[in-house]
Amino acid sequence: LAETAVGVREVSKKLGRTRVRSHIQSVLIVTKARDNRLIKLTRELALYLMMKKRGTDRGMIVYVDAQLQTSRRFDAAGLAREHPELFVPFPKRRTSSSSSLHSTLSNGDSQPSSEGQLRYWTAEMCSRSPHLFDFVVTLGGDGTVLFTSWLFQRIVPPVLPFALGSLGFLTNFDFANHQKVMDSAIDDGIRVNLRMRFTCTVYRAISPDKNSKACRAIKKGATGEILMRNIEQDGWDALESGSGTGGKAGAKDKEIMCFSTRPVECFEVLNDLVVDRGPSPYVSLLELFGDEHHLTTVQADGLCVATPTGSTAYSLSAGGSLVHPEIPAILITPLCPHTLSFRPMLLPDTMELRICVPFNSRSTAWASFDGRGRVELKQGDHIKVTASKYPFPTVCAESQSRDWFTSISRTLKWNERERQKSFV
Amino acid sequence: LAETAVGVREVSKKLGRTRVRSHIQSVLIVTKARDNRLIKLTRELALYLMMKKRGTDRGMIVYVDAQLQTSRRFDAAGLAREHPELFVPFPKRRTSSSSSLHSTLSNGDSQPSSEGQLRYWTAEMCSRSPHLFDFVVTLGGDGTVLFTSWLFQRIVPPVLPFALGSLGFLTNFDFANHQKVMDSAIDDGIRVNLRMRFTCTVYRAISPDKNSKACRAIKKGATGEILMRNIEQDGWDALESGSGTGGKAGAKDKEIMCFSTRPVECFEVLNDLVVDRGPSPYVSLLELFGDEHHLTTVQADGLCVATPTGSTAYSLSAGGSLVHPEIPAILITPLCPHTLSFRPMLLPDTMELRICVPFNSRSTAWASFDGRGRVELKQGDHIKVTASKYPFPTVCAESQSRDWFTSISRTLKWNERERQKSFV
Amino acid sequence: LAETAVGVREVSKKLGRTRVRSHIQSVLIVTKARDNRLIKLTRELALYLMMKKRGTDRGMIVYVDAQLQTSRRFDAAGLAREHPELFVPFPKRRTSSSSSLHSTLSNGDSQPSSEGQLRYWTAEMCSRSPHLFDFVVTLGGDGTVLFTSWLFQRIVPPVLPFALGSLGFLTNFDFANHQKVMDSAIDDGIRVNLRMRFTCTVYRAISPDKNSKACRAIKKGATGEILMRNIEQDGWDALESGSGTGGKAGAKDKEIMCFSTRPVECFEVLNDLVVDRGPSPYVSLLELFGDEHHLTTVQADGLCVATPTGSTAYSLSAGGSLVHPEIPAILITPLCPHTLSFRPMLLPDTMELRICVPFNSRSTAWASFDGRGRVELKQGDHIKVTASKYPFPTVCAESQSRDWFTSISRTLKWNERERQKSFV
Amino acid sequence: LAETAVGVREVSKKLGRTRVRSHIQSVLIVTKARDNRLIKLTRELALYLMMKKRGTDRGMIVYVDAQLQTSRRFDAAGLAREHPELFVPFPKRRTSSSSSLHSTLSNGDSQPSSEGQLRYWTAEMCSRSPHLFDFVVTLGGDGTVLFTSWLFQRIVPPVLPFALGSLGFLTNFDFANHQKVMDSAIDDGIRVNLRMRFTCTVYRAISPDKNSKACRAIKKGATGEILMRNIEQDGWDALESGSGTGGKAGAKDKEIMCFSTRPVECFEVLNDLVVDRGPSPYVSLLELFGDEHHLTTVQADGLCVATPTGSTAYSLSAGGSLVHPEIPAILITPLCPHTLSFRPMLLPDTMELRICVPFNSRSTAWASFDGRGRVELKQGDHIKVTASKYPFPTVCAESQSRDWFTSISRTLKWNERERQKSFV
Repeated sequence: LAETAVGVREVSKKLGRTRVRSHIQSVLIVTKARDNRLIKLTRELALYLMMKKRGTDRGMIVYVDAQLQTSRRFDAAGLAREHPELFVPFPKRRTSSSSSLHSTLSNGDSQPSSEGQLRYWTAEMCSRSPHLFDFVVTLGGDGTVLFTSWLFQRIVPPVLPFALGSLGFLTNFDFANHQKVMDSAIDDGIRVNLRMRFTCTVYRAISPDKNSKACRAIKKGATGEILMRNIEQDGWDALESGSGTGGKAGAKDKEIMCFSTRPVECFEVLNDLVVDRGPSPYVSLLELFGDEHHLTTVQADGLCVATPTGSTAYSLSAGGSLVHPEIPAILITPLCPHTLSFRPMLLPDTMELRICVPFNSRSTAWASFDGRGRVELKQGDHIKVTASKYPFPTVCAESQSRDWFTSISRTLKWNERERQKSFV
Repeated sequence: LAETAVGVREVSKKLGRTRVRSHIQSVLIVTKARDNRLIKLTRELALYLMMKKRGTDRGMIVYVDAQLQTSRRFDAAGLAREHPELFVPFPKRRTSSSSSLHSTLSNGDSQPSSEGQLRYWTAEMCSRSPHLFDFVVTLGGDGTVLFTSWLFQRIVPPVLPFALGSLGFLTNFDFANHQKVMDSAIDDGIRVNLRMRFTCTVYRAISPDKNSKACRAIKKGATGEILMRNIEQDGWDALESGSGTGGKAGAKDKEIMCFSTRPVECFEVLNDLVVDRGPSPYVSLLELFGDEHHLTTVQADGLCVATPTGSTAYSLSAGGSLVHPEIPAILITPLCPHTLSFRPMLLPDTMELRICVPFNSRSTAWASFDGRGRVELKQGDHIKVTASKYPFPTVCAESQSRDWFTSISRTLKWNERERQKSFV
Repeated sequence: LAETAVGVREVSKKLGRTRVRSHIQSVLIVTKARDNRLIKLTRELALYLMMKKRGTDRGMIVYVDAQLQTSRRFDAAGLAREHPELFVPFPKRRTSSSSSLHSTLSNGDSQPSSEGQLRYWTAEMCSRSPHLFDFVVTLGGDGTVLFTSWLFQRIVPPVLPFALGSLGFLTNFDFANHQKVMDSAIDDGIRVNLRMRFTCTVYRAISPDKNSKACRAIKKGATGEILMRNIEQDGWDALESGSGTGGKAGAKDKEIMCFSTRPVECFEVLNDLVVDRGPSPYVSLLELFGDEHHLTTVQADGLCVATPTGSTAYSLSAGGSLVHPEIPAILITPLCPHTLSFRPMLLPDTMELRICVPFNSRSTAWASFDGRGRVELKQGDHIKVTASKYPFPTVCAESQSRDWFTSISRTLKWNERERQKSFV
Repeated sequence: LAETAVGVREVSKKLGRTRVRSHIQSVLIVTKARDNRLIKLTRELALYLMMKKRGTDRGMIVYVDAQLQTSRRFDAAGLAREHPELFVPFPKRRTSSSSSLHSTLSNGDSQPSSEGQLRYWTAEMCSRSPHLFDFVVTLGGDGTVLFTSWLFQRIVPPVLPFALGSLGFLTNFDFANHQKVMDSAIDDGIRVNLRMRFTCTVYRAISPDKNSKACRAIKKGATGEILMRNIEQDGWDALESGSGTGGKAGAKDKEIMCFSTRPVECFEVLNDLVVDRGPSPYVSLLELFGDEHHLTTVQADGLCVATPTGSTAYSLSAGGSLVHPEIPAILITPLCPHTLSFRPMLLPDTMELRICVPFNSRSTAWASFDGRGRVELKQGDHIKVTASKYPFPTVCAESQSRDWFTSISRTLKWNERERQKSFV
């Protein structure tokens, strides 16, 4: 695991420093398919890209949301009428140089060579065949970028995020300049910023078989340590051991109920995982483990586990620090904690975190992944968080560092109050 | 620079994971020389170490504070009377295996072979000949550990910090167990935790020679950028360029006064550098640069620049997050900032920070290094902060990670309020 | 309204300073009826009070939870067997002196004179006939005190809160000393601390009748002001006027949809009202009005509106200040706000607050009252918060001020870290 | 004392609600006398006021800074040349109705009746004869208003604060509209907002006379209580009694050194008193007493004691809440406290606070009053803070409440970030 984190970091640094020039042939456009204004802009952009010739080559292959296939406002038929040349079948794509980024295996057969330059993407294509796309362009706000992260749960093509309104933390290109920006990206290449994502795996408790001898553990009275007799291999056994304060002297050993869990779902997050009390009026009781050691018991409205990219999002609202995207850290920020000493904390990204809903919790907890996909965690369930093997590459405007400072100045109106005049 | 930071980090990880066994022959004891209770404990510990035989070897060579040479309470003469064998001249020391840690060159000549096992250290010996000592033992609180960092401005021998009262963040061994702890360290070896330090270099402004053509720059009206005509090589030219908001459209270029600085002093810090307004009633005005880009203008009582080790010290009081010591970051925490949006921030430890007192500041600023050595910074002066080549090795009780979690639980009474009972 | 707040405050001060001696005749015991340990303690306390004779008078009349009537563990039959004299019908109660506290009208007829000293209370009796009880004793934690506040939605008899475990913010008497405390209260009188409560009224939107001319308003383009043509008297018309920034120059006037609301429910809170996003993954959008002026738009996880008594509860977790209970203030504390400048705020208790879910909110909001009674607020609904006419009298141990300082020292381990030793 | 606070509060409310119409005859202009731009504006304003006729009366009498008497730029001689009628001696002033605000005793003799309409003020006149001025106009920023508070240490005439740049917290009138604002104030009357000030009295320790029996006290081992044998009446005897945790069981009584203090200086503050460590590198050790009870020991960089008016100034930087100016509270905000549980706190304005530098403090402390007048506090010294009898009346633009909300929206860019678009 530590190797994954370190490996991603090394690649990230190199990429951020050199301009990658690649033969971009196919571009995916992500936007909110139901916003009328956006449909118009999508059409414009798609046309621009399809028409953009490089040397003797035809323009780009452009993938738009499959929902636009029948959209009146998008009017694909009109495009075909006005620009029939774009709909001439396109030769099978060459493997673009940038695809080496994503460990390869582009067999290409999935796309019939009979299609023209305008094609339609579906969520399934993104998750199954990310290598089809050399490049993703997003139109919208930070939410559209997060949605793109959601679409590509494994390998992600480089993402160029255009802001439609004011620039956001993630959307650092103004759509007003889109032609200039696209030309430069296509002709001169791009600088890529590999943003760490987390892999969040949901584990469900399996109710223990009462007769099974396997499911037992002893809690030592003297140390608070929990000893397993027999560990079953599939799933992770959440030992509620080593509770900070340790055992009381003279306490008796006792046999405790032990439970097994198995992984059921997996989510990649770019900003954060939030576990909170959901509709419950009661405070969350969560147990936090790091590398299988018990770190602390959380009594709070919830817990936000954020990437450095997410440090400017929910984590900041909850009192977390701003964290430069090159710092290899996991941000743990409690939401309205019951103890004043439970402060926001940063852990190394090589650590494997587990957030458990203990059996003695009064209520269940709810997890959301980049603000989406609320999942209920029942007593005994937990989520494992690790640095992902699949980072999220975004195109830099200047450099990762400068982009970040610019975005926080701009978006937080950072430090912007006029210099106060004082009395002399 | 980035290489220094990364290099130290790699070594650090390896060390933290393996037990280093070394032939420890000479031990330095650091303590408050004027505290009577401590003198007695120092005498006890010194005697224990000098008497501790390994095989056929004699015990340790022990260095105590030169101030104890004449201390009645320490009573060196008494020791000589009772244990004359300890004062028999000792053969020239062998190069201990642990000294390979500190890039070597122990020529050993500095110590006359005619001395016995009890020797006296001075601050000068620590700064000049750190290789004399295989090991440092501190008796006291976190302050004594910081003092040890102060003594060893370059290479630092492994430090084993004993707490006399309650354990602190840095003092993770209880003096009550000192025999057991020392035996284990000497016989079984130690696990070392390489804590990052910062090198803080103070640069003073050189008043510009009015006639010199060299000292001029142009501020572009349109961009706010500052262009130098001629950069002198010795010292760094603080360009107050690229101020976040940039220039106003239509603004004129203007020639600005430019100033050169030269380095005058250098401090290694283990916890933090604090720049504040000192006795001035006015708020500090500081300019913060990262890798020679202007990051922000600080209007605050001051600025704390902390290592992860220092995240539990002053930075925490000022609202910073808790940062695991393995995270390669610089913590920037403003003290009572004037803008609510200036939040604590973490930057990569590969960044070169500069904190400048601008010429338009109403008052000077004051810097302190690990709470010591107040230095006044006049208008035009600045401090450069970089990750140090000389980390501070401390002995782990368990592992760096476990030690850290234990110390924050213990010292902050972390998350310790009893579970609140709620109403049903 | 301002008069209510000021009136309550004046009475409060006088009461807090003098010992009130009253002829206490009937005591209500509130506890968790299902906790076996508590049933036993309730029985003990009830017996003690019933047996406690004053002069020639019989002991107290004691009201216990009606659920205990059939509890085996409480064993009312056993009490009757062992102490038949307690079950002899009791003469009609005299009007106790303390009842003058609560604007009177104790007609007394509600209780048959044929009952003995052990009686049973129901929630309905508490809400309808609070004058039946001279005194309330609570056994449990702070939650039991909050439950008592919930039981008595209007007049509240003086409450003496016993803690069973560690003392809490509200439970400042140790049950271990209950005989001494009760004796002193009954024989020497009590000092009462009138804690402010809030009256929270839930208003529901009435869908406007499309044809009705009554329901219209004009938003002035130039000022942002909203003008009503015709205000209907029943309910409050939430004018989303005067939005901080005002109108943009040249903006057109426009007719806006206007809505009426009507009050549907009313809750008294002792600690706080919390309006949050409940199960919704989206942030809350709330409009905050004070004395019918628009104060701000809240984009946050929610909003906590707390009394000074509640300043040590949820508000503190969300970052609020500690507020002395004599300060006549409403605490507004945002939960994870989206803007760093939305800081906790204190408003005068004479202000009438309204928290509205605007029609353009993406999701509904949820309100809870002292952590109970989750109520959904749909778009257009709002809650009005005002200082209540019915404060909550609690018995002081020493004085309101001393009690408060003691409770925060004790419960927050306030300022309790040992004095740090520093290095010399 | 409580009566002072309550009295001021009652008057304040009445004043804030009604428009006071008074016959304004003499106006004092406060500004930075050395700023050239301000001198020009002062001249303009003075001329406007002197020329403003009401009925058959002459215009205002205007007092400008005595430093302007010889200012070339102000050019008093030029005024006399151009407007000789203004320099005709003016009849002795009538008692204006507004002077009843300030408990009277305007004997008027201090001003010779032979002066014309342009007169010169000195700091001494402000402190000795505040009744000379019906009205104060300030030109500048919040600092100029604080300076006005400094000038008038006792009775303060109503203050109308004009902002020259952007409006501040205290300067709620734009100088661009000064003619309209002045006309309205003079012709239609004003609404006044009585802002609470604190009286801060510095007490110095008197070194105890060793032989005197008077100076002794006994610390009870069992309770921690301190008993005085003999209290001397002049000065306050700082009893370091009742330390939160109380005495340890079995501790012995001991005689402790007792010290007397006497008041030496007195300052009125409008924003805040700050006690900090000044140039000392060590943290402050302060003892905080409320109504002569020990509240807590402060280990921090310092302590800010603010009025509600000051809640938007330094207290906010240090983490305090925003407090509406009608709330009768003292804000205690620690600066970088050593314990995470020492949170900002509000106490009633009827409380008498004392901030003591204990004898065991390692360093002295420094006090500043509204950012001015640094005073060193040695070991044994203390400052007493009470609500002042002399509030600071400022002219409202709309109403106290509306003005305050407007100022925080404006100055803190409160809650101003655009509504975030989220992904659908």
